[in-house]
Amino acid sequence: MEVCYRTIGVIRSEFRDKHSTPIQGGFSNAEGSIEIFPEYADGLKDLGGFSHLFLIYHFHEAGSPRLRVQPFLDRQERGIFATRHHDRPNQIGLSIVELVSVDKNCLRIRDVDILDGTPLLDIKPYVRQFDLREQVRCGWIDKVVSDADGAKEYIPDTLQPPPTENKKRN
Amino acid sequence: MEVCYRTIGVIRSEFRDKHSTPIQGGFSNAEGSIEIFPEYADGLKDLGGFSHLFLIYHFHEAGSPRLRVQPFLDRQERGIFATRHHDRPNQIGLSIVELVSVDKNCLRIRDVDILDGTPLLDIKPYVRQFDLREQVRCGWIDKVVSDADGAKEYIPDTLQPPPTENKKRN
Repeated sequence: MEVCYRTIGVIRSEFRDKHSTPIQGGFSNAEGSIEIFPEYADGLKDLGGFSHLFLIYHFHEAGSPRLRVQPFLDRQERGIFATRHHDRPNQIGLSIVELVSVDKNCLRIRDVDILDGTPLLDIKPYVRQFDLREQVRCGWIDKVVSDADGAKEYIPDTLQPPPTENKKRN
Repeated sequence: MEVCYRTIGVIRSEFRDKHSTPIQGGFSNAEGSIEIFPEYADGLKDLGGFSHLFLIYHFHEAGSPRLRVQPFLDRQERGIFATRHHDRPNQIGLSIVELVSVDKNCLRIRDVDILDGTPLLDIKPYVRQFDLREQVRCGWIDKVVSDADGAKEYIPDTLQPPPTENKKRN
């Protein structure tokens, strides 16, 4: 079964090259913005009360879909659904960003890990009561982290977070 | 711009009617399963190490898209992007479920808030380092919760969680 969607806006960021885009927003201080197409702007009402958003978007520069990939954090091949890699059967991306402000149809966001020009499909509020999971097991990622000496070392050099004291707000 | 995806599997649950489906998995004890189509099964490698998954799926029984909706938790109309309501411009659903087991191309899951027969688009692991946000503001939902006397009262009667001591594991 095929389903088709229309993009509702475009994500803007400083990342013009997918190889230098941070792997996840939690490791990025980057600010960015979202231009929501005017016909959807009315749906942004009440969004400003939320500090964090899920963005669901299309990985427009992904490579061909693969079922096994070597994740950015690891040297072994893993099943694609056990990773957040973009070369997925359906090239859908999911990120959590901090919402800085809403001005008409333009959102300013922070902790951005998304390529400039990425087509946006949906925005959902991050809701503590629905989305917070504290007791979790994270399979191969837990292993990579525990094998490394500290959180920074398991991130490849090119993907290191900026060395500021404000690295991780959440 | 239009993007099209092919469903990778089907979600099975006890919920046959969208009006009696729990609003979020955190309020549900329900178990369910996912049948991944065999051609994608190889992408499930390594998934079993993760305790929680994001499911991205198509709201196949959603109504016509609207920009303002009255959410299940509230009596006021809100902007669609400030809610998780299904009548969205792109009818994409996002849930976090607990992974119980992986057996070939079949996953057993728990905390299911998804209608039986829902077409699945993607699975991503829930990763503590990427997805945990503890200091968050939740706009109108915080207000509804604080106006109500305890967490149960802001959930409509028909959507109340089951009265077990095991209501919320996470």
